[in-house]
Amino acid sequence: MSTGKINVSVENIFPLIKKFLYSDHEIFLRELISNATDATLKLKHLTNIGEASVEYGNPVIEVKADKDKQTLHIIDQGIGMTKEEVEKYINEVAFSGAEEFLEKYKDSAKDSGIIGHFGLGFYSAFMVANKVEIITKSYKDEPAAHWTCEGTTDFTLEDSNKTERGSEIILHINDDEKEFLEENKIAELLTKYNKFMPVPIKFGTKEKELPKAEDAPEDEEAKKVTVDNIINNPEPAWTKQPTELEDEDYNSFYRELYPMQFEEPLFHIHLNVDYPFNLTGILYFPKLSNDMAMQKDKIQLYQNQVFVTDNVEGIVPEFLTMLKGVIDSPDIPLNVSRSYLQADGAVKKISSYITRKVADKLKSLFNNSREDFEKKWNDIKVVIEYGMLTEDKFFERAQKFTLYPTVDGDYFTYEELEEKIKDNQTDKDGKMVILYASNKDEQHSYISAAKDKGYQVILLDTPIVPHLIQKLESSKENISFVRVDSDHVDNLIKKDEDKTSKLSEEEQTQLKTDFEKVVPKEKYTVQLEAMDSNAAPLIITQPEFMRRMKEMQQSGGGGMFGMGNMPEMYNLVVNTNNELISSLVGKEEAEQERIIKQSLDLARLSQNLLKGEELTNFVKRSFEMIK
Amino acid sequence: MSTGKINVSVENIFPLIKKFLYSDHEIFLRELISNATDATLKLKHLTNIGEASVEYGNPVIEVKADKDKQTLHIIDQGIGMTKEEVEKYINEVAFSGAEEFLEKYKDSAKDSGIIGHFGLGFYSAFMVANKVEIITKSYKDEPAAHWTCEGTTDFTLEDSNKTERGSEIILHINDDEKEFLEENKIAELLTKYNKFMPVPIKFGTKEKELPKAEDAPEDEEAKKVTVDNIINNPEPAWTKQPTELEDEDYNSFYRELYPMQFEEPLFHIHLNVDYPFNLTGILYFPKLSNDMAMQKDKIQLYQNQVFVTDNVEGIVPEFLTMLKGVIDSPDIPLNVSRSYLQADGAVKKISSYITRKVADKLKSLFNNSREDFEKKWNDIKVVIEYGMLTEDKFFERAQKFTLYPTVDGDYFTYEELEEKIKDNQTDKDGKMVILYASNKDEQHSYISAAKDKGYQVILLDTPIVPHLIQKLESSKENISFVRVDSDHVDNLIKKDEDKTSKLSEEEQTQLKTDFEKVVPKEKYTVQLEAMDSNAAPLIITQPEFMRRMKEMQQSGGGGMFGMGNMPEMYNLVVNTNNELISSLVGKEEAEQERIIKQSLDLARLSQNLLKGEELTNFVKRSFEMIK
Repeated sequence: MSTGKINVSVENIFPLIKKFLYSDHEIFLRELISNATDATLKLKHLTNIGEASVEYGNPVIEVKADKDKQTLHIIDQGIGMTKEEVEKYINEVAFSGAEEFLEKYKDSAKDSGIIGHFGLGFYSAFMVANKVEIITKSYKDEPAAHWTCEGTTDFTLEDSNKTERGSEIILHINDDEKEFLEENKIAELLTKYNKFMPVPIKFGTKEKELPKAEDAPEDEEAKKVTVDNIINNPEPAWTKQPTELEDEDYNSFYRELYPMQFEEPLFHIHLNVDYPFNLTGILYFPKLSNDMAMQKDKIQLYQNQVFVTDNVEGIVPEFLTMLKGVIDSPDIPLNVSRSYLQADGAVKKISSYITRKVADKLKSLFNNSREDFEKKWNDIKVVIEYGMLTEDKFFERAQKFTLYPTVDGDYFTYEELEEKIKDNQTDKDGKMVILYASNKDEQHSYISAAKDKGYQVILLDTPIVPHLIQKLESSKENISFVRVDSDHVDNLIKKDEDKTSKLSEEEQTQLKTDFEKVVPKEKYTVQLEAMDSNAAPLIITQPEFMRRMKEMQQSGGGGMFGMGNMPEMYNLVVNTNNELISSLVGKEEAEQERIIKQSLDLARLSQNLLKGEELTNFVKRSFEMIK
Repeated sequence: MSTGKINVSVENIFPLIKKFLYSDHEIFLRELISNATDATLKLKHLTNIGEASVEYGNPVIEVKADKDKQTLHIIDQGIGMTKEEVEKYINEVAFSGAEEFLEKYKDSAKDSGIIGHFGLGFYSAFMVANKVEIITKSYKDEPAAHWTCEGTTDFTLEDSNKTERGSEIILHINDDEKEFLEENKIAELLTKYNKFMPVPIKFGTKEKELPKAEDAPEDEEAKKVTVDNIINNPEPAWTKQPTELEDEDYNSFYRELYPMQFEEPLFHIHLNVDYPFNLTGILYFPKLSNDMAMQKDKIQLYQNQVFVTDNVEGIVPEFLTMLKGVIDSPDIPLNVSRSYLQADGAVKKISSYITRKVADKLKSLFNNSREDFEKKWNDIKVVIEYGMLTEDKFFERAQKFTLYPTVDGDYFTYEELEEKIKDNQTDKDGKMVILYASNKDEQHSYISAAKDKGYQVILLDTPIVPHLIQKLESSKENISFVRVDSDHVDNLIKKDEDKTSKLSEEEQTQLKTDFEKVVPKEKYTVQLEAMDSNAAPLIITQPEFMRRMKEMQQSGGGGMFGMGNMPEMYNLVVNTNNELISSLVGKEEAEQERIIKQSLDLARLSQNLLKGEELTNFVKRSFEMIK
């Protein structure tokens, strides 16, 4: 038996690092600016605790491109490195300087914003450069160093005459990566990844108008000066305390995040937690447009103010991916797959923390300003309903603030609704019936019949309603949701009421036969009812259960298998007490048929079933009748 | 100046490999089975070329779990390793054995299916195991070796008494990864990643009924035997030549890929190219359901029969992500970001190759069996139209097979349509007008008026139509698409025809004033026209341009800014030659108002604009009129 050491061979691991860890070339700039930021914040920390006796000042990070020389320069005024430190940190790949630093200054460094997550970052420079130089001078009183490497494992290290503190990284850009020397490309990358990093980043200059002197003549041209072009906001709103911010600050940060977005957000949620994980951020409820798919991927994920991705799938629960805003957390693993994220304990906790915060915010909005909350309901209901359907915890919490709007524009909580309807809308078996409509226009005649009975009709008009009411029915006792057009009004909520028909049994049997001769059997089941004489003569209804199962299948998932493809079937309710109907008894057959047909067309119009050629013919006939 | 070597320190790189390269723990099994497959195929290759003088036989790879001992075993009958080879291949991390092998046997090894892409794969075992053993015997006549490592860089290596050729990997599973000892979990992973790998994989046993003897009594129970449970199909359809396969083979492979899918695919496309990149695969056009979002992520990506992902975004052009099937290519970079894929030259070529193959297939289906192609049109048009809109190359190719169905069920190519309509549907300015409808039912009266004029009306009913016709108009000369309800029929295609009104100028002016008194100004512009006396008295139209811009904005992207929010405006065309209209002249005001109101309601019905309370009132009034 022998023992030994596993040997990692450099020649093989080096290309691997390049290829696997950073296959997205453009991120080299993010990595180098992260390092520069790191170096600057380290110096700040050391001066703060009195370990460095230099002036911290107002350091910036500068990015410069030289197209002629084909070089890109990243220059910081941070901690710098001595020759020994270059040997140690740069030449020992994967020996992350930030980690060692954090270890040494553990307690004081906490919360000082030191990144240290991109240990191998420096080497990503070789994805775009065939030669990389570092010219660096430490804050310590030692000569500057100049390191050069041409992408192999060989390097040279010599003295430099650099006198200012900090590091300059010079990238000699490959011929086929020249796009990274273009001003537009660099600006695009800086905006994408570094827009909110904590040290000011200078890229080029811009002209600025000076304010005119008060006594200057009207037509004098404004004087311009050239100033540094700082591309980032080092102190974005989410890094501040909620107490420091006004509504207007949140709104202006929203505009900063989404410059192309013209509508204001409905409200915001400030996230701020440091146990058991670190997370800050601001989420916004936007006004949702019709195209749900376009809403996604709007939340941006940062790690210590460095942009990581705009795909937060797995981190934020699905129903909240329709929100906008930022989340910043050092505790979310990068570069990992969806399925891993979904299984990760820390990430699960983050996801449920966010869900809870959103529920808390909604509840406090509801409690503090109900009127305002009601006004926003239409814009936020999709998110809330979807959340209720998919997250059981949220479902529970949402009971307190979910609103049930009536067709007349009142908004009730479930409790209030129950209080309002339980007397009048409980059927003979003790079941409370919640009447709803999905479309005020299309179901108008049914709604108005229900309202005449003193019933409340609520409006539930999002596509997931069939699924949601299924869930509500099973979570509450002895209630059922019934759409207003699922039966005629006397049957919607069955009570022990005697109904007397004007017609005799015999007349009724005859009438049914007469109707069945005219009405197509495969579409309509004729159902005679003794209703109020003022109610419509004919009403078309579709049973709740069947319609709901079909809808659930069509909107994907749930429902009963095969229901989605069943043909549409309706009930044709004939009101035997209506004068038009009772007058049919004994009428001549042709006249009977004409009246039944015209009445059926009118009933179909009320249920949006008269279409195409039949509608065209109906309209033609009706024009004739006007003359 | 000094020079030196960059030093990768093992202690730091090892955890990094574990963490970054394979953050998705479950893939360890894919890696180990890939290695086992690799070792088996290497042996096959060596026996084929006469370098190994052993019997290749029918090797299988076996996966076994021992819950008591908390171990998972992966056993192959492949090439095996000598002690020296273990030292070399296992102890030198990132020294990929497959690469060296490929280098040595470059020419003969080509196309022999050797994987060699998962160089570091073996070490992924340490993500789930605290101790890993390798017991291996080479095909060469040398003693077996036994390597053990407990997750640090230390290992032991000793002789083993293993006598069968091949390697056994034993994983001592961590306490918190015990799920990987569960039969269900292992079966799930094998099905996900290894379902089509080229060497049979055995996992457990199953019972199989023996065929009954011919003279066996009816009620005799079938005899059962226990056989190996092979979980994979080593020769999936895409690895065969199209000439070896019948339609039924493609369909049964479809069922193998999607066991839960009950509908047959419409047709398939067999991909097979080896220059300038390697790619095989089979794509299927499925019947699309209404929920577009659910269609995506159905194409599976493989590398040499190893499952990689079901997210082919960036590899397959967006419009084809609605298809199903498999793509297998060693040339697609793994573990890389979307934006990188989109920029990668090889991937771009793959994407355009796939686009071209799909276009070719559609064209040959059209040419070889037009009737069948027409039947499938409704199911495939969304993909084709979306492709035309987003890929210019596809747009050009699609000219040959894109169909324009008429409302009567004829299908024309653009050329045929042009031939059919150019005489009758060219307006006085020489512009050819293509009339279309978006809904046969809703636009019935307009369609029938156009057909009475001998016009062809085509049916374009997908949501992207406004964008598509915009593109068609700008790519062809002197044509325009006009929806049938965008003006009254005489104006749809303007010709030099004299129209004489029955009414005098004076009467017309008076009539217009009368209408404007009754009709709401903010919704309707009254437009008097001398049409055929048999045409409807009132027609509501909405100009093409405005409606299209609104639709484009609403469906996201394009259109004119702000149009989406403009109020709906219509033209109310008054046919002065219709008797009902001319009879209005000089009528008493109240009667005039009644007729105009009822006529307006009827015109609105034809354009689906009479809704809600107004419809309810119209129906009530009409019931009264029957009596």
